[in-house]
Amino acid sequence: MAFDPATLIYNEAGLIPAIAQDAESGDVLMMAWMNEKAIIQTLETRRVTYWSRSRQAFWIKGETSGHVQELVDFRVDCDRDCLLLSIRQTGPACHTNRRSCFYTAVRDGAEIEIMAPEAG
Amino acid sequence: MAFDPATLIYNEAGLIPAIAQDAESGDVLMMAWMNEKAIIQTLETRRVTYWSRSRQAFWIKGETSGHVQELVDFRVDCDRDCLLLSIRQTGPACHTNRRSCFYTAVRDGAEIEIMAPEAG
Repeated sequence: MAFDPATLIYNEAGLIPAIAQDAESGDVLMMAWMNEKAIIQTLETRRVTYWSRSRQAFWIKGETSGHVQELVDFRVDCDRDCLLLSIRQTGPACHTNRRSCFYTAVRDGAEIEIMAPEAG
Repeated sequence: MAFDPATLIYNEAGLIPAIAQDAESGDVLMMAWMNEKAIIQTLETRRVTYWSRSRQAFWIKGETSGHVQELVDFRVDCDRDCLLLSIRQTGPACHTNRRSCFYTAVRDGAEIEIMAPEAG
């Protein structure tokens, strides 16, 4: 069946959550949002492009930082309201310079940092 | 620092997305939503509890199916608006009886199923 991004379920802002997972390590690196055009552009260019809710603009991941994401595989969930992107990440995915945005764990009621920023 | 779920960023419906990742395989199994009370309950009971948007009710994962999720680690992202749950999954995570909800891949413009339902 041909994939039609119009058949996905978007929220009231026209967005769908996209989870970025490292294709090699399996680590979940970040979650961001896409609209229909960002999906089309990501599939065409294989360079992951989100929609920035704060800037209200397309966000070609790594365009300024160089920390690009190359699309390896694109998946849709059973409800068609969430995406899973298998990607090859150059440099850190997080704007804090950590490999993943999920560097804070909650253990025994306390927040602890489980990942340091990368050097450079 | 003590973890206070009130410091997380919830959407206009009071919900935050939660990604469930298999603690052993690293596979991303599903994405669902939590509110503040579901988070507190999940951390206290170590049984993952979501908020069902369709039923508008707490959803103790596996309560009827037996396909429970035991919490292994609970993580918060840099923006405090997304959760990553490392879990031990009993049985399939997806209501279609597949291990993961992300069983549809988009390759060369076509949707293909990359995972079969489990037997039983």
